[in-house]
Amino acid sequence: MTQALALQRIRRLLVANRGEIAVRIIRAAREMGVQTVLVHSSADRDSLACQMADRTVEIGPPPAAKSYLDIPAILAAARSHEVDAIHPGYGFLAENAEFASQVAAAGMIFVGPSADTIALMGDKARARAMAQAVGVTTVPGSPGALADVVQAMSMAKEIGYPLMIKAVAGGGGRGIRVVEHAEALHAAFAAAQREALGAFGDGHLYLERFMPQARHLEVQILGDGQRVIHCYERECSLQRRRQKIMEEAPSPALNDQQRSRLCQAAVQLAQSVSYRGAGTLEFLFDQGEFYFIEMNTRIQVEHPISEMITGIDLLREMLLIADGQPLRFEQQDIQLRGAAIECRINAEDPQQDFRPSPGTIHQLRLPGGPGVRFDSMLYPGCVIPPHYDSMLAKLIVWDESRERALYRMRRALDELHIAGIAHTQSLHQALLADADVCAGRYHTRFLEQWLSQRQAAGRANGPPPAQS
Amino acid sequence: MTQALALQRIRRLLVANRGEIAVRIIRAAREMGVQTVLVHSSADRDSLACQMADRTVEIGPPPAAKSYLDIPAILAAARSHEVDAIHPGYGFLAENAEFASQVAAAGMIFVGPSADTIALMGDKARARAMAQAVGVTTVPGSPGALADVVQAMSMAKEIGYPLMIKAVAGGGGRGIRVVEHAEALHAAFAAAQREALGAFGDGHLYLERFMPQARHLEVQILGDGQRVIHCYERECSLQRRRQKIMEEAPSPALNDQQRSRLCQAAVQLAQSVSYRGAGTLEFLFDQGEFYFIEMNTRIQVEHPISEMITGIDLLREMLLIADGQPLRFEQQDIQLRGAAIECRINAEDPQQDFRPSPGTIHQLRLPGGPGVRFDSMLYPGCVIPPHYDSMLAKLIVWDESRERALYRMRRALDELHIAGIAHTQSLHQALLADADVCAGRYHTRFLEQWLSQRQAAGRANGPPPAQS
Repeated sequence: MTQALALQRIRRLLVANRGEIAVRIIRAAREMGVQTVLVHSSADRDSLACQMADRTVEIGPPPAAKSYLDIPAILAAARSHEVDAIHPGYGFLAENAEFASQVAAAGMIFVGPSADTIALMGDKARARAMAQAVGVTTVPGSPGALADVVQAMSMAKEIGYPLMIKAVAGGGGRGIRVVEHAEALHAAFAAAQREALGAFGDGHLYLERFMPQARHLEVQILGDGQRVIHCYERECSLQRRRQKIMEEAPSPALNDQQRSRLCQAAVQLAQSVSYRGAGTLEFLFDQGEFYFIEMNTRIQVEHPISEMITGIDLLREMLLIADGQPLRFEQQDIQLRGAAIECRINAEDPQQDFRPSPGTIHQLRLPGGPGVRFDSMLYPGCVIPPHYDSMLAKLIVWDESRERALYRMRRALDELHIAGIAHTQSLHQALLADADVCAGRYHTRFLEQWLSQRQAAGRANGPPPAQS
Repeated sequence: MTQALALQRIRRLLVANRGEIAVRIIRAAREMGVQTVLVHSSADRDSLACQMADRTVEIGPPPAAKSYLDIPAILAAARSHEVDAIHPGYGFLAENAEFASQVAAAGMIFVGPSADTIALMGDKARARAMAQAVGVTTVPGSPGALADVVQAMSMAKEIGYPLMIKAVAGGGGRGIRVVEHAEALHAAFAAAQREALGAFGDGHLYLERFMPQARHLEVQILGDGQRVIHCYERECSLQRRRQKIMEEAPSPALNDQQRSRLCQAAVQLAQSVSYRGAGTLEFLFDQGEFYFIEMNTRIQVEHPISEMITGIDLLREMLLIADGQPLRFEQQDIQLRGAAIECRINAEDPQQDFRPSPGTIHQLRLPGGPGVRFDSMLYPGCVIPPHYDSMLAKLIVWDESRERALYRMRRALDELHIAGIAHTQSLHQALLADADVCAGRYHTRFLEQWLSQRQAAGRANGPPPAQS
């Protein structure tokens, strides 16, 4: 018998999120014997998460600003239900240092790192400086926020083109501009500044070299404030408008030595801030070199593929760490086994430029059998409201090798049937029929180019174009 | 990259079965790029397996004798669709040596051992003798078939009471009688003989010591005709009328040394017949000793729990072995990791003495999230015909330890919703609330005693009785 696991401080947990991650948190809590209190908007009254939670509290209407982002309302619910801890999931308040701080001030546990760590890593320029300080390479760029466009022009000469203008307070792909040559810098700077100001209330910008063929890799780590371990990397280069679409673990681009170097860099960086909780360090990988981009101080959508290749339940570990317990694993206990793939099924119509497609799920048939996992907010008859992120479900498979996992994912996708709204299942089926995707030959701009080519060929959704 | 897997000889596979195992075989075939031809009865026209197979052939009406047991009809379908191989699943013709022989004679591959091996291991007395020859202990009993009741009386004195009378050609719990004392032997012998003659056309009987507190353990093996490896054991003691209800792997009753001895005995025995295919060696475990009972020369219902703790896809390995390929694994490659539990969801009403409950599935909601697998024949609206085995689905979970797997199974069972017919979900929920089951303290007669106690207490389905 392994040692029995039990939480000491967390008996009741408030789930400050919605959709599939709320379901995921409730499942993890239930398996640890923890009661759940779910706060939700009026649009989510009939959600799967609401049906699964032990208690529910309606805190406001959509949009999110009036409910899922309403800190006083969430804290009021937490107090009145006497919860011990709050799990923020991803998105919404997950990386909001002020929220983490208020949770702690209210005498409750924030399931995540301290407000200080969130604030530090949320400042992209400071995070880059942190990385450089411990010898982790960052993307060549301006050392911090730019004073103005004049400084930008002069820095850009040093960095070289193409480059990116990014918001210091940025995230979710906003406040970013790609600049191909010097003539375009001025206008792009102004546009990025406007967008950053509007989105984040902070117009500070910085520059980064743009690597059009780079891959987006990220390392999953767990820290208890003393030690940090990694759960290997995820390959997240298949993106559309900087939103990940399909992820896999491990990355097909790395050899063992590169993997080891990458994961070690991530651990080192997280250790330098005495990281506590689950986190992800994002890197670009280009021509054999890694460049740290940023850290996400929360659980990520694509965490299941790391769970599948390591056997670690990341949400469970988050609860144990938040409870104040030390990490249960040494690095050598974390074995990379096989390969996992995740396809995000979004309520978007790939035939119509990914137009959002809310509505009612009339039929639902789920894939099963070995190595297949389905994390979703779906049930037959459920209504997908128009107010939120479009992700409906994550179909995840594991198998002994990447080749086998590709076969298994095709099989599982063929079994999945979601009727009632348009969604992205067929996009994944087409991607998994593409020779480059199957060979692991792709980068962060691959998917958008692939979609453009198909659109040009009049095949929004049919068989893939002939391979070169 | 691991080496690419491909079948050389098997391009098209006939699936000679129904229900969840037909679905399981189709999934394995699809993941190996193999086309499937499913033979089915008229009662199964709308089955999930029929919807998933590449081709279907209706071979007759129910009962099974007119379709799933009709060897000429199955071979005719195989020939007309030019299949390379036939997978028999479990039950029906899976352990029918004559069928295996005719498949081979028709120039096709039988996915399983040779007809000779099936015949040898199907003869329980010869199988016992085989075991003894290689030094594997068997249950004390008569050395072979008994001449008559007079010989039985004299053997019984040597073996001691309680004992069991069993049919040489037996299986599925038929032709078996427990005899508590000498006075009852005569009548039990006559009754067992009648039942064996009726069920198997063979009235030969043998005696075995009956161990009322024994556990039923079984070892999963794979052989390629040269080498045999094991995938550890399954604990299958939770039975009702000799039908397994809930299984787990590994067994909570064994220490590492016992596990190693048990698995080694199984490998040795399978090796002595140069076993080819997937197979299971069944043992009783009583007071620290193992006793070989019989071998099943086929895949078993509960195979997924072995898949979950080892990461091996047993159906895939069966196809590779049938294709003529050598085993891909050394024993040391097969790592036991974590713990798995399977709950069989049967169309039986536990409130009404497990009366069969065919009908239409009106609603279906499946559990999801980490470590949860669902293997079934179900889809919303499907009709469960009354003619066959009552098993609808297998809910399987894996987790890092037995304790965690128990929590996870409770969570997954709570998420499962099957409406329209009565089934055994609530039985599993009650079992998983029982202190003895949770502690792993149970044996082959535990479940029937537990059910009797609950019935006496008027709680067919409520909370468990107070623990002693």
